[in-house]
Amino acid sequence: MMFDTDRRRFMGVSLTGLAGLSASAAAGGIGDVQDQASDSIKVGVDVTRRLAAYIVGSKYDDIPPPVRKEARRTLLNWMGCAVGGSRHETLDAAIGALAPFAGPPQATVVGRRERMDVLHAALMNGISSHVFDFDDTHLKTVIHPAGPVVSAILALAEHRPVTGREFVNALVVGVEVECRIGNAVYPAHYDRGWHITGTAGVFGAAAACGRLLGLTQQQMVWALGLAATQPVGLREMFGSMTKSFHPGRAAQNGLTSALLASKNFTSTDAGIEGKSGWANVLSTSRDYAQITDRLGASYEISLNTYKPYACGVVIHPAIDACVQLRHEHRLDAGQIERIDLAVHPLVLELTGKKTPRTGLEAKFSVYFAAALAIVRGSAGMRDFSDENARDPVIVALRDRVTATVDPSIKEEQVRARIVLKDGRTLEKRIDHVLGSLERPLSDADLEAKFMALADGVLPAAQVKTLIDRCWNVDTLASAGELAVAARPA
Amino acid sequence: MMFDTDRRRFMGVSLTGLAGLSASAAAGGIGDVQDQASDSIKVGVDVTRRLAAYIVGSKYDDIPPPVRKEARRTLLNWMGCAVGGSRHETLDAAIGALAPFAGPPQATVVGRRERMDVLHAALMNGISSHVFDFDDTHLKTVIHPAGPVVSAILALAEHRPVTGREFVNALVVGVEVECRIGNAVYPAHYDRGWHITGTAGVFGAAAACGRLLGLTQQQMVWALGLAATQPVGLREMFGSMTKSFHPGRAAQNGLTSALLASKNFTSTDAGIEGKSGWANVLSTSRDYAQITDRLGASYEISLNTYKPYACGVVIHPAIDACVQLRHEHRLDAGQIERIDLAVHPLVLELTGKKTPRTGLEAKFSVYFAAALAIVRGSAGMRDFSDENARDPVIVALRDRVTATVDPSIKEEQVRARIVLKDGRTLEKRIDHVLGSLERPLSDADLEAKFMALADGVLPAAQVKTLIDRCWNVDTLASAGELAVAARPA
Repeated sequence: MMFDTDRRRFMGVSLTGLAGLSASAAAGGIGDVQDQASDSIKVGVDVTRRLAAYIVGSKYDDIPPPVRKEARRTLLNWMGCAVGGSRHETLDAAIGALAPFAGPPQATVVGRRERMDVLHAALMNGISSHVFDFDDTHLKTVIHPAGPVVSAILALAEHRPVTGREFVNALVVGVEVECRIGNAVYPAHYDRGWHITGTAGVFGAAAACGRLLGLTQQQMVWALGLAATQPVGLREMFGSMTKSFHPGRAAQNGLTSALLASKNFTSTDAGIEGKSGWANVLSTSRDYAQITDRLGASYEISLNTYKPYACGVVIHPAIDACVQLRHEHRLDAGQIERIDLAVHPLVLELTGKKTPRTGLEAKFSVYFAAALAIVRGSAGMRDFSDENARDPVIVALRDRVTATVDPSIKEEQVRARIVLKDGRTLEKRIDHVLGSLERPLSDADLEAKFMALADGVLPAAQVKTLIDRCWNVDTLASAGELAVAARPA
Repeated sequence: MMFDTDRRRFMGVSLTGLAGLSASAAAGGIGDVQDQASDSIKVGVDVTRRLAAYIVGSKYDDIPPPVRKEARRTLLNWMGCAVGGSRHETLDAAIGALAPFAGPPQATVVGRRERMDVLHAALMNGISSHVFDFDDTHLKTVIHPAGPVVSAILALAEHRPVTGREFVNALVVGVEVECRIGNAVYPAHYDRGWHITGTAGVFGAAAACGRLLGLTQQQMVWALGLAATQPVGLREMFGSMTKSFHPGRAAQNGLTSALLASKNFTSTDAGIEGKSGWANVLSTSRDYAQITDRLGASYEISLNTYKPYACGVVIHPAIDACVQLRHEHRLDAGQIERIDLAVHPLVLELTGKKTPRTGLEAKFSVYFAAALAIVRGSAGMRDFSDENARDPVIVALRDRVTATVDPSIKEEQVRARIVLKDGRTLEKRIDHVLGSLERPLSDADLEAKFMALADGVLPAAQVKTLIDRCWNVDTLASAGELAVAARPA
C-alpha cells in the first residue's frame, strides 16, 4: 500500500464517506440545519462572506507541506492532460471559432503555438485538460478539480506577476472552494443533471483568480456572486465536445468574475446561500456547514485522485490486475490459454463490447482492455488506438478473455485468473484499484503518465523541463514559467 | 385606444392569458403531455431539432408586415435604452475590467468611443440596454427580449455582411425562440429563482446569430445545446450591477454558441428536452408544446411592450393619470390642494417611500412620482434625478399626495383625484396603463423616449439619423450602419 498517512491527516473527512454520498451527518456548528428530504428553500447565514474571508486571508505558509505536495501532483497531472489533449479536434474547432475575436497574445495555449488573451487561454486549456476524460477526480463529488482552477490561474500568471508560492496557494484555495461547495450539494445537484465540474468549478476559478488579483473581502464576495450567476454544464452534453467545454468555460467565467469584481462591479452578498442563490436554485438540497466548517483546517485537495488508465474507471481494476500479473510473471500473450475475470455488474453493463473495431470502441471493452494490459503492459491514451484495436496479437488474446459478474465484488475490485498453456494458473485479486485514495499513483506513475501524454506534442527535453517546473513550482519566481515551458518552440 | 388589430392577429395567444401564467392549457398537438403538478422529469420528442429547423428555414419574406413593424419598434426601443445607459458606471466598470483582454476593435459599444471585439461588444451593449430597467418586456414571461438578441446581432452585423432584412429576420426569430422557451417553463422556472431574461435569452441570441451565420440544421441543434449549457442569471443578483450583466452575458454566450457550432463544435441533439436537458434541469415543470406548436404561424414579438416611465411598472398607472390630468387641464403645481390616489396593494408595498432624498430613492416613491408627473409632465430617466428629488416645488407637492390601497384595483390600474385650491375636483381613472398591450406606446412616444435617453450622449442630428435608420432598417444594405450611427463622432 502506497497510502501516505500524512496525506490522510489533511483529508478532513473519514474515508468511509467516499462511496459517493455527501458527509452531511458529520457537519455541524453553523446553525442552518439542512432538510435533506424536502426541496424547501434554505437560506444560509453569511456563507459567501465567510468563504470570501477565508480566501482573501489564505497564505502559502499556512498550508501544510503534504497538502502543498498534493497541489504539485495535481498540477503535474493537469499539465500532462492539457498537453496531451492539446491537439484534439475539439481544440481545433474551438480555436477556429473564437480566435478571430481573441485579444492580445498574452497567454499560452498549452501544447500549441497559438497564444491568446488570458480569458480565451483559460477556456482552451480547460478544454484540453478534460478532452480525454483523463484528468483528476475528487471522488466525493466527482468534480474534476484542476480543470477550472489551474486553467484560469496559469493563464493569469502569464499576465501579471505571480510567484510559484502564490500560485500554489491559489490552486489549493480554488480546489478547496469548488469542492466544499460541491460537498454541500452532492449528490442532489449532480442527480438533477448538472455537470458539477462546471457548476462548482466556476467558484474555484473565481476564488483562485480573486486571490491572485488581491481582491478585498467585499470584492471576493462579489466575485463569488458573479460566479454563482454563471454556472456551466448540463450532463445532457456528455458524449459531445461540449463536455470538455464545461471546465474551460468555468475557468473563463470564474476569471471573468474575479476581474469584474476587481473593478468594483457589484453583485449580491449572498450569491451562494440567498433565497435565490446558487445552492437553492441549482440543488434540491444543500448543507452549508460543508462549506464553512473547519475552513483552513482541512484540505479537499488531499482527496484528489488521478487516473492511471485512459478509459472509464469501471475497467481499471481488470487492467490493474493484468498489468501486475504481466510484470510479476513476465507474461507473453502466446503463453496464455485464457483469462477469466470476476467483475462488478457495471463492468459488463458499461464495457461489455466483445469485438471493438476502433480505439474509441475499445475503451468500452473489458475484453480488449485485459488483453491490451497483457500485451502492452499499459493502457494509456495512445494504447486505445485503432491500430491496437485491430492488432492480431491483442485481438487473438481478447477473444480468450471471459468476464463474469460477481455481486460480491465492489466497483474498485476485480478477481483475475490466468490459465497458461503449460497448465499453471495465476491469480490476482485487486481490492483497491491503482489510482484510488488507498493506492494513489506514485510520483513516478504520474511522471510516466505525463510522458506518455506529452509524447509527440513536446520534445523530450522540454517534457523533462516541464515536469521539473511542476515539481518545483513553489520555488519559481514567476509561475508564468510553467506556461512558457508548455509552449512548443 | 391605440391598439392595433393587425398586431393582435399575430400574437398567437389570446390576451386573457397575460396575467403572468403560462398558457399551457391552450397547448396541444405534440404528444408530450405535461405534468404541471409534479417535478417529474419529462423528456420531449425532437423539440430542439424542430426548433432548429424553424430557425434555419426562417425568411424575412415570410414575416407579416405588422410583425416586421413591431421588430422595428423593438429595435428602436432597445437602441434608445442602450444609448441612454451607455455612460453608466456599470459600463465603466465592465469595460475597465475586460478591455485589456478584448480582441480587435470590430464592433461598436453603443454610445461610447470604445470599439471592442464582437463578443465583448455584445456583452457591453446588453448591459447598457438593461442598466436602467427601461427596456422591453414580454409580459407573459417577464423576459426582456431585445437585450440578449439585438446586442448579439448588432455586434455581428459589424463583422460580416448582414442586410437590413436579414437583421430583421434574425431579430424576429431570436425573440421567438427565447420567448417560446420561456413560455414552456414560466412561471415555475422564474419562481425557482432564475432571471429568465438571461437563461432563456441565451437561446434567442444563439438562434439569431446562428441564422445570420447560415448554420445548417445540425449546427443549429448544436448551437442550441451549447446555449442550454450556459444559462446566465440568478434573481439573487437583483439590486446589483450583475442584474444588467445577465442580458449582456446571454448575448455573448449565445453568440459564442453559434460561432462554435459554425465550426462543427458538437453538443447534444436534445439540449432543451433531454433527460438532463435545460427544461428538466432548470425548471420543475415544462410544456414543450409551447415551443413547437404553430412555429412560423404566430409571433411572440407581437406581444412585446415598452415602458414609458423610467421606474418600476407598479407606479406607472399613477404617473399616467397625473400626466394626462396635467395635459388636459394645463395644471400647475401651485393650483393643487392635494392629490389622492387609490392604488393596487403592491404600489405601497414596493414604492411607499414618503421622503426620497436621491433620484434612485425617488423611483420607489409613488408620492414623488405623482408630483413629478404634474410638475414636469414626464417621468423619464433624467427626471428621476437627485436635483428633482430635492426640487422645492416637487417636494412641496409630493407632501400633498396621499395613496390608499383599494383591493378592487388591478396592477395596471389607478384612480386619481386632484383637489384644486379653487375648489374644483378633477378625476382620472386608468384601466390600462400606457405601455400595456392594450395601450401601447405610439411610434411618436417611442421616439420621444429615445430622444430623452440619447440627450447628452449623442448630438441631436445624429440622434435623428439613428432613429431614421432604426425605422428603415429593412432597407439598409448593411445593418452595421445602425451601429455606426450609434457611435459618438
